[in-house]
Amino acid sequence: MSGCIFCKIVNGQIPSKIVHRDDLVTAFRDINAQAPTHILVVPNQHIRGADEISAEHGQVVAAMFMVATRLAESEGVGASGYRLVFNVGPNAGQSVFHLHLHLLGGRHLAWPPG
Amino acid sequence: MSGCIFCKIVNGQIPSKIVHRDDLVTAFRDINAQAPTHILVVPNQHIRGADEISAEHGQVVAAMFMVATRLAESEGVGASGYRLVFNVGPNAGQSVFHLHLHLLGGRHLAWPPG
Repeated sequence: MSGCIFCKIVNGQIPSKIVHRDDLVTAFRDINAQAPTHILVVPNQHIRGADEISAEHGQVVAAMFMVATRLAESEGVGASGYRLVFNVGPNAGQSVFHLHLHLLGGRHLAWPPG
Repeated sequence: MSGCIFCKIVNGQIPSKIVHRDDLVTAFRDINAQAPTHILVVPNQHIRGADEISAEHGQVVAAMFMVATRLAESEGVGASGYRLVFNVGPNAGQSVFHLHLHLLGGRHLAWPPG
């Protein structure tokens, strides 16, 4: 979508530390990392947020989790554990309106999650 | 799965504050609520965790998000925002090995998410 920063990262118009790219999903490092591993996993197609996921998105949403699992392994945090977070709206601090999964690992993650 | 507490909640063998139930997904209030709204959304089928999601789970995973969106609306936190969290492994404090999405809303959710 024109003007969407994550669409521009997916399309290569904005540089990013890409760690995975396939036909459905792109993953790159968060520029404000909150943990030793902090990666964003996004669908290549523009979906506005987790609140816009519908039945037609099943394949791409499952793919996002499968990529997150593979990246957690390659980052060495698969066994120690990690947290997957989707923010929706102002109370959660959603700042980009292109669906993205935060993968955080490499340290203890406290509870509550914010 | 025998011995799984969330399977028992889905099957009605253990009482819980159920807020949604359909053919694919069950949702109930977290007994240790960390926010005014804190609901767990689970697939009725036993999936061990987010790290076990595969392509065949696309439909049920999309359904989990669609239920979360509807519950956020009915809880009155759809506009103010909410956070969706999946914990995997010890660093994230995963305590039940049946896939579950934490839906937290009704207050500001700080960053980092734990």
